[in-house]
Amino acid sequence: MVTTRDTATRRAFRSWQLLAVVLCGLLCWSDASLAARDPLPSWNDGAARQQVVDFVKKVTTAGSADFVPPERRIAVFDNDGTLWAEQPIYFQFFFVIDQLKAQSPQHPEWKTTEPFKSALAGDLKGVAASGEKGIAQLVAATHAGMTSDEFAKSVEQWVSTARHPKTQRVFTEMVYQPMLELLHYLRDSGFKTYIVSGGGQDFMRAWAPAVYGIPPEQIIGSQGELKFELRDGKPVLLKTPKVALIDDGPGKPVGIERFIGRRPIFAFGNSDGDQQMLEWVASGDGARFAGLVHHTDADREWSYDRQSSVGKLDKALDEATSRGWTVVDMKKDWKVIFPAEK
Amino acid sequence: MVTTRDTATRRAFRSWQLLAVVLCGLLCWSDASLAARDPLPSWNDGAARQQVVDFVKKVTTAGSADFVPPERRIAVFDNDGTLWAEQPIYFQFFFVIDQLKAQSPQHPEWKTTEPFKSALAGDLKGVAASGEKGIAQLVAATHAGMTSDEFAKSVEQWVSTARHPKTQRVFTEMVYQPMLELLHYLRDSGFKTYIVSGGGQDFMRAWAPAVYGIPPEQIIGSQGELKFELRDGKPVLLKTPKVALIDDGPGKPVGIERFIGRRPIFAFGNSDGDQQMLEWVASGDGARFAGLVHHTDADREWSYDRQSSVGKLDKALDEATSRGWTVVDMKKDWKVIFPAEK
Repeated sequence: MVTTRDTATRRAFRSWQLLAVVLCGLLCWSDASLAARDPLPSWNDGAARQQVVDFVKKVTTAGSADFVPPERRIAVFDNDGTLWAEQPIYFQFFFVIDQLKAQSPQHPEWKTTEPFKSALAGDLKGVAASGEKGIAQLVAATHAGMTSDEFAKSVEQWVSTARHPKTQRVFTEMVYQPMLELLHYLRDSGFKTYIVSGGGQDFMRAWAPAVYGIPPEQIIGSQGELKFELRDGKPVLLKTPKVALIDDGPGKPVGIERFIGRRPIFAFGNSDGDQQMLEWVASGDGARFAGLVHHTDADREWSYDRQSSVGKLDKALDEATSRGWTVVDMKKDWKVIFPAEK
Repeated sequence: MVTTRDTATRRAFRSWQLLAVVLCGLLCWSDASLAARDPLPSWNDGAARQQVVDFVKKVTTAGSADFVPPERRIAVFDNDGTLWAEQPIYFQFFFVIDQLKAQSPQHPEWKTTEPFKSALAGDLKGVAASGEKGIAQLVAATHAGMTSDEFAKSVEQWVSTARHPKTQRVFTEMVYQPMLELLHYLRDSGFKTYIVSGGGQDFMRAWAPAVYGIPPEQIIGSQGELKFELRDGKPVLLKTPKVALIDDGPGKPVGIERFIGRRPIFAFGNSDGDQQMLEWVASGDGARFAGLVHHTDADREWSYDRQSSVGKLDKALDEATSRGWTVVDMKKDWKVIFPAEK
């Protein structure tokens, strides 16, 4: 934009600008030196923490061979099992079951039809036996036909009251404190943080912005087709049962390209569903960080990997070893798991 | 993130912070007062300009009943006919024809098969007669099977050399100077600017960031399915002929919800393909701006609306009148159309 500015005003403007730049520089230096003391207070000293800090330092140090300009500092995180817990089953599934229960009086046929029968009885194994198709049926039955606004409200309502069967915490307090610190640390270092999750995009967008400080437009997840419609002359967007993207496995790099349009330089996951995302990020040019959370703490959280039906970590763990990706051992690397209860 | 800070350091930190806040405030005031003089120098005084400025003032004035916090200041712009010209046919189509020509030696059958025959002969009417299906065939034949990186490079190459048949300008210099100023003005006022276009998402992302100052992740367009694949152990994303989203008409609010996840407060389009986007934006709560560019300048650009096969503006023009949306009369409202040639 070209505007005409008289010389005196320009000079005054430049003086303020210079002074502000100098002082902002001092402020940033001061802020950085404070943050550098302990950017990750819930992380124990160890290889994982050191690899994170070393990576952030080298890509943010001007003049470093690995320096990355801020607009390319893109970090992607899986959600289930990486930012919050996922046992005994993905938390969104508890939401679906509660929705089914609330809607069941209008659907007497659900009492005798699978997968509804098992879901209503809380029989997770029975539901799992119905496979992906069964789960898609449950999601479609409870979500489709709602407007985007109605759906967001129903999630907000649920997430503020429902509690985890084992810990009795609300689900948003089953996020990992060390990962909250990592998100802050990256953003303080000029990164743009994204969620790239197999979970429902609309489900996450209803609560994750407040919990993680990540805005809706940086939350990518599995998603259904929407339908635009006028209702009494007022436009609405309706959720439909048709799937638009399964943001898991090879769907993750696809979701990243579609939504972000450039390759992130930092990725964290915890399961085989994150393998292709980590491969995509790690194989770009220049410095790259690929990390996995390994669930090793049966006392404070859960311990599972190669044999688990939820959050199975097998092939990706082998690849992490062979490629030198960072693996977080929850038991050893994290001082605390969950934040203090509010 | 909780960190322990000793008292002396905190005090020093606060002093710097206070000083910097004061000086940044002065700087911003100085910057704002300069910008306020002439945020839109290529716009003539008139209703359209006034409505834009009034809207921006009321949503950015703290304490105003219409104040909107920065994170909700989302503005969406159509591209073809709104940010750059679109006659005698969408510019992406010239790219497709050039791609066809380059690839035609490997496809002798194109010489005798429609829509390839017409496209190679530059017969735009013949191509148009093949309908949407024909155009999709052309796009699929030239784009599918390329990796995302290869495609981006081919667009970059083309856009730096190809010239418009009438003006002989490179296409990126057929953007509208008044709209470039509007994008800057909105961003200076704390807005996040997005493109929401029926054009190809990957096509736009290859050149629009440098031209409009809008990063790839804020460019939403029509898009095909991608396929993740390992080639010699290295992951690639391949473009496929399968359509994932036609980001036009009712597809625009769908694209907005899918990518942004909240309703913009400001929208600009120029054709019936933007009608549902404008309806979606205008029908939200609080202050809203919906605008249309009306092509009325046959001398400096083109003059077309209700009868045009490209950028038809008919129903949306009626709705703009009945709902009081802003309509830009290019001939009267814009001092210049295109930026000075470089």
